Amino acid sequence: MSAIDLLRDELRTIGDLDSISAALDWDQATYMPDGGAAARGRQLALVSEMAHAKRASSTMRDLLSACRDLESRDDVDGALVRRARQRHERATKVPAALVRAIKEHSAEAYVAWTHARPANDFASVRPLLERGLDLSRRLADALGYVDHPLDALIDENDRGSTVASTVALFDALRAELVPLVKAITAAKPLDASILARPVPAHVQLEFARSVAEQLGYDFHRGRMDLTHHPFMTRLSGGDVRITTRVREDDFGEAFFSTVHEVGHALYEQGIDLAFDGTPLGEGASSGVHESQSRFWENFVARSPAFWSRFLPELKRAAPGTFDDVDVERMVHAVRHVGRSLIRTDADEVTYNLHVMLRFGLEKDLFDGAVKVAELPDAWNARMTTDLGVTPSDDREGVLQDVHWFCTTIGGSFQGYTFGNMLAAQLWESAATAMPDLETAIAAGEFDRLRAFLIDRLHRHGAVYDPAQLIERATGKPLGIEPLMRHLRANYGALHGVA
Amino acid sequence: MSAIDLLRDELRTIGDLDSISAALDWDQATYMPDGGAAARGRQLALVSEMAHAKRASSTMRDLLSACRDLESRDDVDGALVRRARQRHERATKVPAALVRAIKEHSAEAYVAWTHARPANDFASVRPLLERGLDLSRRLADALGYVDHPLDALIDENDRGSTVASTVALFDALRAELVPLVKAITAAKPLDASILARPVPAHVQLEFARSVAEQLGYDFHRGRMDLTHHPFMTRLSGGDVRITTRVREDDFGEAFFSTVHEVGHALYEQGIDLAFDGTPLGEGASSGVHESQSRFWENFVARSPAFWSRFLPELKRAAPGTFDDVDVERMVHAVRHVGRSLIRTDADEVTYNLHVMLRFGLEKDLFDGAVKVAELPDAWNARMTTDLGVTPSDDREGVLQDVHWFCTTIGGSFQGYTFGNMLAAQLWESAATAMPDLETAIAAGEFDRLRAFLIDRLHRHGAVYDPAQLIERATGKPLGIEPLMRHLRANYGALHGVA
Repeated sequence: MSAIDLLRDELRTIGDLDSISAALDWDQATYMPDGGAAARGRQLALVSEMAHAKRASSTMRDLLSACRDLESRDDVDGALVRRARQRHERATKVPAALVRAIKEHSAEAYVAWTHARPANDFASVRPLLERGLDLSRRLADALGYVDHPLDALIDENDRGSTVASTVALFDALRAELVPLVKAITAAKPLDASILARPVPAHVQLEFARSVAEQLGYDFHRGRMDLTHHPFMTRLSGGDVRITTRVREDDFGEAFFSTVHEVGHALYEQGIDLAFDGTPLGEGASSGVHESQSRFWENFVARSPAFWSRFLPELKRAAPGTFDDVDVERMVHAVRHVGRSLIRTDADEVTYNLHVMLRFGLEKDLFDGAVKVAELPDAWNARMTTDLGVTPSDDREGVLQDVHWFCTTIGGSFQGYTFGNMLAAQLWESAATAMPDLETAIAAGEFDRLRAFLIDRLHRHGAVYDPAQLIERATGKPLGIEPLMRHLRANYGALHGVA
Repeated sequence: MSAIDLLRDELRTIGDLDSISAALDWDQATYMPDGGAAARGRQLALVSEMAHAKRASSTMRDLLSACRDLESRDDVDGALVRRARQRHERATKVPAALVRAIKEHSAEAYVAWTHARPANDFASVRPLLERGLDLSRRLADALGYVDHPLDALIDENDRGSTVASTVALFDALRAELVPLVKAITAAKPLDASILARPVPAHVQLEFARSVAEQLGYDFHRGRMDLTHHPFMTRLSGGDVRITTRVREDDFGEAFFSTVHEVGHALYEQGIDLAFDGTPLGEGASSGVHESQSRFWENFVARSPAFWSRFLPELKRAAPGTFDDVDVERMVHAVRHVGRSLIRTDADEVTYNLHVMLRFGLEKDLFDGAVKVAELPDAWNARMTTDLGVTPSDDREGVLQDVHWFCTTIGGSFQGYTFGNMLAAQLWESAATAMPDLETAIAAGEFDRLRAFLIDRLHRHGAVYDPAQLIERATGKPLGIEPLMRHLRANYGALHGVA
């Protein structure tokens, strides 16, 4: 066997261990009885330690050495060796004691957060956030960076992005977005009340399932189950699962979370199967992944074309509930904008302000411009400036998201907004490539749109760096204009904003 | 840490790997989409290789050496070291090439069987059975034995039993059973037609679930799902799952398969949690395990006391379906006896004849008294002698069971009949310990009965050898009389057989 084949074999074994973790995680989040938790924790730790040991091993080091000649090549094998080396180096750079400390801290902080949030008790988690920040700095130091420690953490999820590049994009976006939100929220709000009409859970789930299938999610290579916090997970190229949740008095909950996860799943199902189990067989970055969920959730499934196709199906599925609703009213409901305090409830227009607030605070914490003790005030001040609403307590403010309590502080949020920007950019490219895009959507024909995304994005997996992939796919670097054009055209106009 | 603690830790790691396999198997049998099969096969092979490597490792050898002093002790630590040594020796005795050859052969033979059975094509699988027999002999040689090669394979599942001890029991049982079956099947058959009345699947499943809960199966430490071939699996002491299947026109299918798996699960849920993850934290043998499923399925759930409690509940669950049925009629239905050709359809009286036939043929194959080519005729002849019916083709005969096509030939069947014998023996012990046993069952009170089984059997896990455990639990060695007394009293009498 050649060196690259031996390397690929070893990487597939690591990939199989990661897939086993994914299967155990999926089970834990869907069907595992409470009594299974302790043993499952041990099992997950065991598998991730085994994968870590193989990534850091001298075997891996030697395999990479044997493949050194390929590493600079501008082809799939070159990309494979580069990705494998990045993981090997990460595994060897970060001391095992630090990995363990972060894991133990996260477990403790998560439990504390589950108590602190309902009790509105920031003081109780303040020391944990301070320790979390310290551990995050130490992780950044171990990983290494050129300009800013946060660069190291951003790079973990959005390879190639930095504080500098992110701040440049976010400052520009915020400058456009804040006035738009102000103008839209000053106008008469759209009526979203029809989404609160009760629809039985099984009807919602069957409708969501039918839409998922029509969008092209392959149930022979996936499945859909209920969970608390919906997610998509790849157990292998042939087994890409989604989860959803349902509320009888909130039609948007199950429907849009399903379409969101379908977007993630279509990406995974579209990756070249030849890459399966290797570091090339996954999405290119958090931001690119989020672009796919947002593409289908916001650009397809909130459009008039989409509802001209699916409103009749929804009316048949829930007889009597939406008889008086036409496409315009449905689109108004799903494009309702409000000054929400909670990120996960936010609409497409205000959402990125929530994300950028968090990213900005992460940067301020790392820079020392804000101390952990000052976080609640800093949070509330920025909410007031950006969104025109002020949390009445920390439950609606700094305590709302789990992220800072379950992983490092830094690196988790920027991808959400990168994803929204890229989704808009891809939507414009798709509309250029398919002049009849809206007609096709209105006809329920998604094959060509999916083929476009597969060809430009999905099939390449992690072969390209995100920036390269975005340029290849859309002809230009990631920018804010497509997103702003979309928001102005589809939200500004609806609210009489020029 | 002491040597025994280090050994226990290493055993728990192996136990976690086995539990991971169990979780992946469960997923494969319940929810995994078709597309996941190839990667799942790789994942399962990887985990089982890792467990095997740890069992056979020099680390394990050294840990066992360090614990040598404990090994002869008549306590839990002694038992732990003995069980660990048995596994270590098994892992080191059997050459990896033979393990692989058996696995590959089984995969091939299984697929061939799935085609041969519906096609009634014994000739196509004959060479595979010949090879299977050869591999089984080689496995027996590798494992080692004193008297008979089959002893080695029996010992894998029913430790301590041998061909000689099994033949002694089975010859005695057969001598009593054949005339009883002849007499019962000569009498007017009981009416089982009510079990074919259609009951919606969800009603059957809810009723089965309710009964499972009332029998004491703890759903906080387990769950129940649908599958093709029902099974129980332990993912950990806190996560013991059952599966079932349902046919709308066969009430017995879901109900008795659920109660059967509940019996297995109560055993696993009753094992001392201190043993969890170690070789002591599992059932003592196939036969002892089967005794628990049969105890609840046949001795509890086919009794008049049971149906006096649960028939009213069934009538409420399926309104109108069983209004004209009284307890006697229900018991007649669930104790219907027939000369079935198919083991899995067989009733409690004839079932053991099917099992003993298979065990007898395994012995004959090993002894050379029957050649593979002669199997169909030998099968049919013995069916005619023992059950008075002759298969019209091999689908109803030698091709009906998967066992010989998916694992070794030998060792798999005897436990079914050991289980039926032991269930009867335990039932008599329970009735002695609880003179009000039937009254308690009729009142739906199962706590004391469960406590009896936990105390005598479950909690000990695999601490004792099966023979020791049986003596401790019932005061005597495994014998045929309790089973014959049960069959005569509960089946002979119903059919007017003295």
